Amino acid sequence: MRVTSQDVAQAARRIDGYVRHTPAYQAEPDRWLKLECLQHAGSFKVRGAFNRMLAAELPAAGVIAASGGNHGLAVAYAARRLGVRAEIFVPEVCAPVKIAGLRALGAEVVVGGAIYQEALEASRKRAADTGALEIHAYDQPEVVAGQGTLALELPEVDTVLVAVGGGGLVAGVVAALDGRAAVVAVEPELIPTLHRALQAGEPTQVAVSGVGADALGASRVGRIAFDTVAGRVSSVLVSDEAIIEARLALWAEYRVAAEHAGAAALAALRSGAYRPEPGERVAVIVCGSNTDPATLSGDQL
Amino acid sequence: MRVTSQDVAQAARRIDGYVRHTPAYQAEPDRWLKLECLQHAGSFKVRGAFNRMLAAELPAAGVIAASGGNHGLAVAYAARRLGVRAEIFVPEVCAPVKIAGLRALGAEVVVGGAIYQEALEASRKRAADTGALEIHAYDQPEVVAGQGTLALELPEVDTVLVAVGGGGLVAGVVAALDGRAAVVAVEPELIPTLHRALQAGEPTQVAVSGVGADALGASRVGRIAFDTVAGRVSSVLVSDEAIIEARLALWAEYRVAAEHAGAAALAALRSGAYRPEPGERVAVIVCGSNTDPATLSGDQL
Repeated sequence: MRVTSQDVAQAARRIDGYVRHTPAYQAEPDRWLKLECLQHAGSFKVRGAFNRMLAAELPAAGVIAASGGNHGLAVAYAARRLGVRAEIFVPEVCAPVKIAGLRALGAEVVVGGAIYQEALEASRKRAADTGALEIHAYDQPEVVAGQGTLALELPEVDTVLVAVGGGGLVAGVVAALDGRAAVVAVEPELIPTLHRALQAGEPTQVAVSGVGADALGASRVGRIAFDTVAGRVSSVLVSDEAIIEARLALWAEYRVAAEHAGAAALAALRSGAYRPEPGERVAVIVCGSNTDPATLSGDQL
Repeated sequence: MRVTSQDVAQAARRIDGYVRHTPAYQAEPDRWLKLECLQHAGSFKVRGAFNRMLAAELPAAGVIAASGGNHGLAVAYAARRLGVRAEIFVPEVCAPVKIAGLRALGAEVVVGGAIYQEALEASRKRAADTGALEIHAYDQPEVVAGQGTLALELPEVDTVLVAVGGGGLVAGVVAALDGRAAVVAVEPELIPTLHRALQAGEPTQVAVSGVGADALGASRVGRIAFDTVAGRVSSVLVSDEAIIEARLALWAEYRVAAEHAGAAALAALRSGAYRPEPGERVAVIVCGSNTDPATLSGDQL
């Protein structure tokens, strides 16, 4: 199934007042930074989480999600705001600081397996038992439509650069823009989930590693995302070195603190993986800031 | 002398294209954050530096300034952009990392005395010898008018909260707004430069200490600033504890990395030093980000 611009417009009305309209500003001639890293819970993920929750009847058992990262924080944040219970299943590799962050937002945290896929399966079994509403990290239409609301806050540009993990954000952006701007999907070379899917003509499994793995580490692009973006995006890959460079530049030159995944879209510009035409107006989505600011130290202007 | 809204309008035309129009966005209902911390060289100071330089015939000897902080970085940045020499006089207490930052921007750095006042005097002697153009940190009309251009980028609000050091920014904002919004001048309790001057009816010397001293540490408010704001601002004081709390909240809740001085205006709101009426629309200027992000670590959402 494909998510449409009507779905995104409906999501925007639904989540209005629950999410921030984050700033998009002209940082350089013909270059806009969409500072979604300033969003509640530090990433765009609250958009989809609120849209999924507000579109449903929320059961007494509350909501459930599998994620040791931005999606988990977003679901925990949205559940607290809406006054419902949240259970977040995390893999064993989840850093203690992230578990503490989830608990600080009032979520119940369950270590649900060695890797994400096991945590996801455990969360689904639990949801079947309790009747809790599952909030998937990317492969639900309300989640994709929610993420797409970000694109409605962009200025008029020719091209939008967006990082891809499971594909929820890029699919939402493609749906929202509906051809009004070109969309460039940016992935780490080490996690070419969408890139390979577009080559294969369907979502395929890829190995996951590198600096973007904590936030872009889906091993397969979502079915809804694939159906929504196929034939409607360009796909480019960036090296981990380019992502690291872009993240440090975001701080040193623009004073924006972003996580590695949040800097991937900018990396495509800075590394030349995507080369705009002269005069092409480009918006770069800086999609997350769940990072330890200490790791930015020493690179001040 | 007073700086006027015409002076600010002229400055805005002059520096257009040299400074960023930084975002001001609605972070909460009736609360806007003006993210001037995203400005070139990490603070509003480039606005005044560019306006002073572009209003003058730039001599072959270039420009000269006394500052171990944001003003020095701004003058160095603007001089590099305009292709002129910059000599920055710093006091002996200036941290090596700041001297390195100035040198990285191409400035010649001269250690000019034990404290700021001595560095200022040494810089003036040098300027008299070489013919370099002096860029004062706050007490020149072009500098005040330049800083005020920030206020022209604000949304329509009832009240603007702004931190005060030497008074250049607050005076520029008062001049720019010219009564269109109330201006609240926020100072650390430990550096009540403007507060005391307003009580005394003229600029007076105060002792300087506390977390805001590196950026708000003028020991006397500028004459031009005083003449421009007297009778046209409310003055409130905030504790160092409130400034520290607001700075950590800026990161944890809003993902904005600011220096202590940059968080002082928000501290007035969060601590209750300034209490808006219900429905009052308030813009908070976050004026600087020249800080080590490592000092924000451990306070993530």
